Formats: sequence, structure tokens, C-alpha cells
Amino acid sequence: MNATQPHSAILLIHCPDRQGIVASVTEFIYKNKGNITYLEQHVDSQKRIFFMRIEWELGEFMIPTDKIGEYFQTLIGKRFEMQWKLYFPEDIPRMAIFVSKLPHCLFDIIARCQAGEIKVVLPLIISNHPDLQAVAEKFKIDFHLFPINKSNKHHQEQQELSLLKEYQVDFIVLARYMQILSAEFVTHYPNKIINIHHSFLPAFPGARPYHSAYERGVKVVGATSHYVTADLDAGPIIEQDVVRVSHTDSVQDLIRKGRDLEKVVLARAIWHHIQRKILVFDNRTIIFS
Amino acid sequence: MNATQPHSAILLIHCPDRQGIVASVTEFIYKNKGNITYLEQHVDSQKRIFFMRIEWELGEFMIPTDKIGEYFQTLIGKRFEMQWKLYFPEDIPRMAIFVSKLPHCLFDIIARCQAGEIKVVLPLIISNHPDLQAVAEKFKIDFHLFPINKSNKHHQEQQELSLLKEYQVDFIVLARYMQILSAEFVTHYPNKIINIHHSFLPAFPGARPYHSAYERGVKVVGATSHYVTADLDAGPIIEQDVVRVSHTDSVQDLIRKGRDLEKVVLARAIWHHIQRKILVFDNRTIIFS
Amino acid sequence: MNATQPHSAILLIHCPDRQGIVASVTEFIYKNKGNITYLEQHVDSQKRIFFMRIEWELGEFMIPTDKIGEYFQTLIGKRFEMQWKLYFPEDIPRMAIFVSKLPHCLFDIIARCQAGEIKVVLPLIISNHPDLQAVAEKFKIDFHLFPINKSNKHHQEQQELSLLKEYQVDFIVLARYMQILSAEFVTHYPNKIINIHHSFLPAFPGARPYHSAYERGVKVVGATSHYVTADLDAGPIIEQDVVRVSHTDSVQDLIRKGRDLEKVVLARAIWHHIQRKILVFDNRTIIFS
Amino acid sequence: MNATQPHSAILLIHCPDRQGIVASVTEFIYKNKGNITYLEQHVDSQKRIFFMRIEWELGEFMIPTDKIGEYFQTLIGKRFEMQWKLYFPEDIPRMAIFVSKLPHCLFDIIARCQAGEIKVVLPLIISNHPDLQAVAEKFKIDFHLFPINKSNKHHQEQQELSLLKEYQVDFIVLARYMQILSAEFVTHYPNKIINIHHSFLPAFPGARPYHSAYERGVKVVGATSHYVTADLDAGPIIEQDVVRVSHTDSVQDLIRKGRDLEKVVLARAIWHHIQRKILVFDNRTIIFS
Repeated sequence: MNATQPHSAILLIHCPDRQGIVASVTEFIYKNKGNITYLEQHVDSQKRIFFMRIEWELGEFMIPTDKIGEYFQTLIGKRFEMQWKLYFPEDIPRMAIFVSKLPHCLFDIIARCQAGEIKVVLPLIISNHPDLQAVAEKFKIDFHLFPINKSNKHHQEQQELSLLKEYQVDFIVLARYMQILSAEFVTHYPNKIINIHHSFLPAFPGARPYHSAYERGVKVVGATSHYVTADLDAGPIIEQDVVRVSHTDSVQDLIRKGRDLEKVVLARAIWHHIQRKILVFDNRTIIFS
Repeated sequence: MNATQPHSAILLIHCPDRQGIVASVTEFIYKNKGNITYLEQHVDSQKRIFFMRIEWELGEFMIPTDKIGEYFQTLIGKRFEMQWKLYFPEDIPRMAIFVSKLPHCLFDIIARCQAGEIKVVLPLIISNHPDLQAVAEKFKIDFHLFPINKSNKHHQEQQELSLLKEYQVDFIVLARYMQILSAEFVTHYPNKIINIHHSFLPAFPGARPYHSAYERGVKVVGATSHYVTADLDAGPIIEQDVVRVSHTDSVQDLIRKGRDLEKVVLARAIWHHIQRKILVFDNRTIIFS
Repeated sequence: MNATQPHSAILLIHCPDRQGIVASVTEFIYKNKGNITYLEQHVDSQKRIFFMRIEWELGEFMIPTDKIGEYFQTLIGKRFEMQWKLYFPEDIPRMAIFVSKLPHCLFDIIARCQAGEIKVVLPLIISNHPDLQAVAEKFKIDFHLFPINKSNKHHQEQQELSLLKEYQVDFIVLARYMQILSAEFVTHYPNKIINIHHSFLPAFPGARPYHSAYERGVKVVGATSHYVTADLDAGPIIEQDVVRVSHTDSVQDLIRKGRDLEKVVLARAIWHHIQRKILVFDNRTIIFS
Repeated sequence: MNATQPHSAILLIHCPDRQGIVASVTEFIYKNKGNITYLEQHVDSQKRIFFMRIEWELGEFMIPTDKIGEYFQTLIGKRFEMQWKLYFPEDIPRMAIFVSKLPHCLFDIIARCQAGEIKVVLPLIISNHPDLQAVAEKFKIDFHLFPINKSNKHHQEQQELSLLKEYQVDFIVLARYMQILSAEFVTHYPNKIINIHHSFLPAFPGARPYHSAYERGVKVVGATSHYVTADLDAGPIIEQDVVRVSHTDSVQDLIRKGRDLEKVVLARAIWHHIQRKILVFDNRTIIFS
């Protein structure tokens, strides 16, 4: 994170549902002179779980910024058995991008970063192929090549992890990275690796989904962004969208139309992630508005 | 309204934004042993207006149901200069439908009412043409005919208002009613008359939008549901959707494709309305999730 | 079919692609004084198959209507090894609807038939449950009940087939018919049974797709209409569409939102079918515009 | 154009509808040993205009490539009073981009050109502001600055026209170029200037459409690509699309969501244009599939 003195704070909370949670949290903030600017809560009535996102201004807040977490846990979190995370919007997260050979998502993300639409620090691109090195260089972003095969995979991933640590990377975006991360790798970044899959999951998981979609004769193709878990293409879905296709579209047309979806769906997922709008529970995402 | 003893209550609130609103409202409910099951708030940061929808269970609530409004106004509403409305979900609203000649929206709404999807009492259909009387009779709904022309309009509307009062109608749906309601009529049902317009407003207001859309050569056509105000097709928009069209579509094709949109967009608007999810401010709608 | 003297003819053709097909077909029509009003062709360049839909006016056509097929086969079809079908738009097809308990698709189709949007004769509704008998009666459509269980399935299907023959049914619509037709039954109506499945296939085939979609946490739900084949939910897809959902939607909300999709997607499929716009090849549909 | 020896030819045709057009055109090609690979025709039955796009392989075609136009006009075009255009897909068109300050569309088009998705030669970027010069330089594309004000507009446009001629530009893309081209300028590139407007026209023409959309409280925002004519934002529409918005979206959110639409809608228009899929008639586009 690249932090400056924060003006506001965000809490993402979930816990077993019971009476008094909203009142207790809002009172905690209000009594300490915080001004609530956003509150959305949601109850999964089947599983009896309470979810909440609350944002407040810190201007006159009586608890020092570095003590908010401790106080909140002691006074509120513990009592309600909460899982919670505290964020400060002024903290700019550090993002790494993993790519293989296809440039469209990489290009699109870089353009968004450069235009200030996606507010992240992007110090590092990792790839298993050299193809996109020139793009990284054009934008003066460090590029590290880790060719992967069966025998070197563990070793290469360890190198990548060291590098990510060194670059203080907060989260990873797989921008059409055509290589499966090991379960062990994933545990280092739980709900912090965003993948784009080129189908509307759970349809067409795995390789060559556009070819499968063509064969099946579907009338829409889709794209899905999700957090990566140990199960391939089965992690919590963040965003999906589709585009109509017809019998006149060849596989190449599906690929072309799909590229636009992939870019947009991945960008929306990154946006929600860095806005701290996403809460994961039970392999599903709550995306606050 | 057809009321039974309510199990929960809904408050829709808006007021000038300032500190402590959320905390005060949630404390009012919590201290009186209400269990908050839903809370969403929104601040229009440009206009500095605070909006909130809150729902809570009344099981052990200490304030008698018929006193909640009075207490809330005295203790909270007055202090924050709130505009608020209190609803009980068990109250089933009474809806009248206005139609002219086209059956598709009428049929669709009746089917939804019969299937229990739209929970309303539907005692009355009003029309300026006799064409759909048979549909009303098939479903045993009272049908009243009020042919309108320039000279009789005021008189006929007065008759309609009497009838609506007699039938204790809470809100009105214009299901392709091809007649403009007078400004005076509208004042009797502020934000309680839902219209479906067959274009994506503000494009193609007024008559024959599909013909205009065809002439303009648009590639999407739309439908818009909105609350009726004195200004034609300019009231607060509740819901909009579109469908793709192409050069192969004739005006008749646009009309056919548009019908499906009209039905769905109108039904969604009615759904949000009776779920008490809509708040109107400054000719815009806040639609809580 | 309910036929009157036709004013135009439609040919749907497919055959191995080679030179001269378009020229030969158009010359056949033109030389015999037919006026071509519609022509669309498509080549599957991978499989080297040629597809064509052509429509022409019969006003001065020199070949008698009942001889067109014979002449076309002799002069053109045979030469190019064509599979072709000849239709006359004035022939009104006879449709049967199969239902179980859910009324929304049935209601919607009947409303479209009554409004003249779907031009078919609808003489017969078949069901495995008595629930929707009242709807059939309201609209004076014959209703036949065939409860199905494992032991009587073959017998009941034979009765249904007799009935369909007796009513001279051209094609069948499964309007949320929750019973699998046997492979044997299906062979009697190849590409003439249209089903609506409540998911975007191939995701969530089989039972309870909305529950599965909820569990998986998808951000869009869909509906798929397809021709029924011996393989469950695997027949050629005619139409698909989707609607966005969010974490705030319960399974019941998905079901509610999905109903609107099902109605529209099924109606579009019926529309394309009776317009003779659909050609099936290799388990995929060509839908002419 | 950058031409090589073509393997196929495309004819775009429109003319008053009458009998025998399809047969005559297909016979012209077939008799001269051309192999038709694509044919789509469309009749505007209201205006009685015939439209056609036909593509054929030139391998054994008996008429020399540079004589096809002359022969076609003499033998067919004249007889049917056709307006027609002949293209060879191997000709790579030369495109200029006009920009002002916003980079997203420019970046997106360049990325598509670099990836080979859009097959054009892009020798020239023209701008009325210096902001995007760095982008042009990064990709080594000539950048020419023409600041425009009321007094110099005519002069500057003349300079631009000279430059376009010098660079042999075939068509122009206005990638959020915030300056109105004079009617005189437009006459030099009829149906050859593609603009992206940030609303679903005809709603919100002119300046600041996102602000207007926010004020009106619409539930969808759109983007429209169209050919530029002398009438502002009133030229033939090529492509439109929309995205849902809600009350939680500020004007800034609309702008952000709209950017993605603008990029995609503009890219689709360019794609159709260079595929020679677009025919303009009476201020409407026929977009062949």
C-alpha cells in the first residue's frame, strides 16, 4: 500500500445475524464523532449471516487511525463474532499483472491505470512467455519472465512469490494468464487473485471455451471474472456479462467479440476490488453498490 | 389497503444530510426492541440529501403499531426535518388499471396477479375504449368505460376520480392507456400513477415512438416506466430496458419486439412500487435494492 | 396445417457447398416468373455446407403450387444433393402445448395467440398435472390430462401421440413441462418440439437450475429455448437470453426474474419457428434474419 | 488503399426494387466463373428499395479485376439503375483519427490496430489539443495539431484536408473529437467519417450528455456511433449499445461506465465499416451480417 493520512475509513463486516448489529456499529462511529457517508447491509436469510459495508469520515473521529481496528474489535467485533476488514480509501493498492501471449486485457488495464480510472500502483508484470515484454517496456513497467513446465513449476512459483513480496504486491490480476496456479500459490493471496475466464461460468470451464461454445451452438457468449481458488474456474464470481452471437459468427468471431467482454468484465472486477466493495462468503461474492 | 396485523415495518426517509441520522434511526428501532432486517442508505452528495430505507421486525417492538408514526415524527423526524413514509408489508395495496385498446400489458399484469407474483388487489379496470371489456369479464374484474373527448374530459375524469375513491384505489397503472391525464387528475395521485412509455425516454416522447425510431434508424429500441406528472412523459423514471433491432426490422417488428419490453419494464416498476422500494426526489427515483 | 391458396413460397435449403448453387436456384425462380423478395445464404466454411432461405411471390409463377416441390427436386435439388423444405406462409401451423403446474409460459403464449402475434391454431393442451385445466377452459382450448409415472410412461406417451395425430398437430411447445419425453416419442417430431429450459445452457442442465445458479453465485441467469432431442437439454439451441442478478437476490428472486426471460425466450423461438426462419444442421441452428 | 492482387470481390448495391435483380447479379458472377461465398439481400418494402451485398471468389473469374466495375455497370448496373460500390477485401484502408483530450477511445483503437483486430493503416492522428501527442509518439504515429477557434476554423480545416489528402486517408474516425466539423469539410468524406457520441441518440444530442442523463434520472446510458453529416449528431446510426445505471451512480460514474461503451461501440462501427458491411440509404444504415 502507498498510504497517506486518510480522510475516511471503510469497514467490511460479516457475522452471524442477530439483533442490534447495525445499531451497535453505527453508535460506535457516531458516539466517536465519525460521520457515516455510506451504509449498506444485507442478510443472507437462509444462512443467517449478516453482511455490512460502512464508510465514515474521520475528520473529527476521536479514535486515532491506527487504533480504530483495535477499538472496534474490543468493543464491537468480539461481541458479535465478526469477521471484519478495515480499509482507508487513501491507501493505493499495489497490483501485479500476470499475462501469457494475448495483449488485449493487459493493454486495456494499463490504459485505465494511465488515465487514472483504476487507481493502483502497477510496478510489475509477470509472464510465462516473452511475447508481451515490449508492451511492458513501452510503459516502463518491470517485466519478469517465468517460463513454466511440469518440472520447474514449483520452483518458478516460489520465485514469483519472492518477487511479489519484494514488490509489496497487494493483489494479482490474471489478464488471460494461460497457466494454472498451484493450490499452494493461491493460499498466499486468498481472494486477492482476480482471473478473467472467457465464458459465462459454470458453462465451458477449462480450455478453449469459445470453440466449445461454437460447437454447442449457443446464442450468447460470456466472460466471467472471479477470485482464484484451488479449484479451477470455480472461485467466487465477481462479475459476468454476455454478448449475443449468431450462426454467422465463426469461432474467430466469437473470440473477437469475446475479447471486448473480457476487457470490460475484468476491469469492472478490478474496480469493485479496489473500491473495497467485495465481500466473499461461502464461495459467493457480496458486491456492495 | 387490505390490512392484517403487521409483522414488520418499512420506513422510507429523506432529509437534508447531516451527522447522526443513521445512528439516531437505528437506535430508535433498537432501543424499542425492533430487529432491523434491511437497511440501505444513500447520500446525494451534490444536493446534500440523505435517503434511507429501513425495515424491521415488530415482534417485540414496544411502540404500538398505530403509534409508530407519531413517535417517530416526534422523536426523530422533526429533529432531522425528515420527509418519511411508513409502510407495513402485510398491507396489500389496491391497484386500478387504465387501458385503451392494446391487450398485451393488461393480460400480462393480470397473469402476474393471478399467479401471486404481484401481490395487489385488482378490483377495477378503466378504459376510454370498449375493446378490452371482454378480457376484464373473463377475469371477473369490474370494467368501467369512460370515452374521452375534448369537451367531456373534465367531467369524465371527475367520474373516474369518484370511482377510484369508491374502490379505495391506492395506485394506478396505465397499461398502454393512450390518453393524457390532466394535471389536475394527476395531483390526486402524486407518484402513484405508473405509466409505460414505448421508448427509452427522453428519446421519442409523445405519440408513435416506434415509427420515429424506425425513421431515425436506431439500433436499439426501449421502454420506460415512470411516475406520471403534469409534464408529458417527463415524470421520474422507474425502470428502462432496451432490445436490439436491425435494418431488417420493419416498424411492425419494432412494435412486436417492443411489446415484450413494455410488459417486462412495466411489471418491474409495479414490483418495485409495491415492495416500497422507490423514493422520489427532484424528479428522480431512488430504487433501493 | 390450415391452408389457403398461397401467395408466396419459402425454401429452406442445405447441401454440400459448391459453385453455382445461388445462381441455379435464383434462375429457377426467375425464369419461371417468380419474384424473389428475400434471400439469405450462409456457408459454414469449416464444414463446407451451404445454407439458404429464399422467399418469392407466386403471383405469376408458372409452376403450379402443388408441383413446385417435384420440379425443384428434379431440376435443382437432386443435382446439388440438397436437403430442402418448402413452405407456404399462408399455411397456419397447428400447435400443441405441454404443461405441468407453472402457468406463466402457458398464459403468455395464449395471450400472444389471442392477440394474433403468434399465428397458429392452438387446439390442444396436454398436461401431466390437472393444475392448469382451468386456464385451458377459460380460453376454450381442449385439455387432456396424462399423469406420468415410471410404469405408465410408455402407454401414456402412445395415447398422447394418438391425440396429437388426431388433432393434426404440426409442432409441440413444452411450456415448462416438467417431464422428460422418451427418445421414441421425440423421433415422431424431429425439430418440431420446442422446449424452454430455465438456464443459459450448457450451464445448469437438468433439475432446479435456479437453485444451482444461486449456489454458484452467478451474476447473470438465463433461459434457453431449444429443439428437443433424445439427449436431455442438449438439442439445438434456438434462442437464449440473460438477466443480471446480484447477491441481494434470493432463489425466489432468481425464479421471479427468470420467469420473464423464459416467457420471452420461448416466444421468440416459437416466432422464428413459425416464420420458417430456422434450419437445423449438426445440432446447431441457423436462424435467418 | 494499400492494395495487393485480390482473391475476392464485394459488391454493395441498392436500387429501386423490381423483378430479376438477384437472378441477374448472380448469373453475371456465375457465368463468368465467379464462386459466390456470401449473399444477403434486403428489401425496404415501404420505400421499394432493394439492397444487396454479394461476395465472390475471383480465382477463375473471367473478367479482369480492373474491368469488373465497367462490365458490371454496362451489363447490370445501368439496367437496374443501381448505385453500387465494388471493394476488394485485400485493399487495406487508410484511417486517420481525430482526438481532443480524452485518451480512452484512441488507446483502444491503437491497441486493436496493433493486435491486428482492425486491419487498417493508421498513419495520422489529428487533434485540436496537444494532450495526446505523447500517446501518438509512443506508438510512432504522426501527430498534427490544429487548434481551432471561430476565426481560424475554415483555414485550419483546409489544412487538415490537405494533410488527409497527402496521407491518402480513406476514412476518418472521430475518437471523442470535441469539435464540430463544418458542413463543407464533411462533404469531402461522405459516409466516411465515423463519430462516437456518448448517449443513445436521439436522446441527449450535443454537449454534456452524461450530465443531462444524470439530471433526467435515466436507468440506462448509451453510446452511438454514426456517420457524420452536416446535421449535428443526426447522421446515419451504425451501432448503439447501453449499460444499466442506478441512483447510486454519480455523473462521474456515468462517465466511467460510458467510456467502456464508447470504446466498444466505436470499435464495432469501425469493424463493420472496414468489412464493407455498411450501406447507407436515406439516413439509415443497412448493416449486413
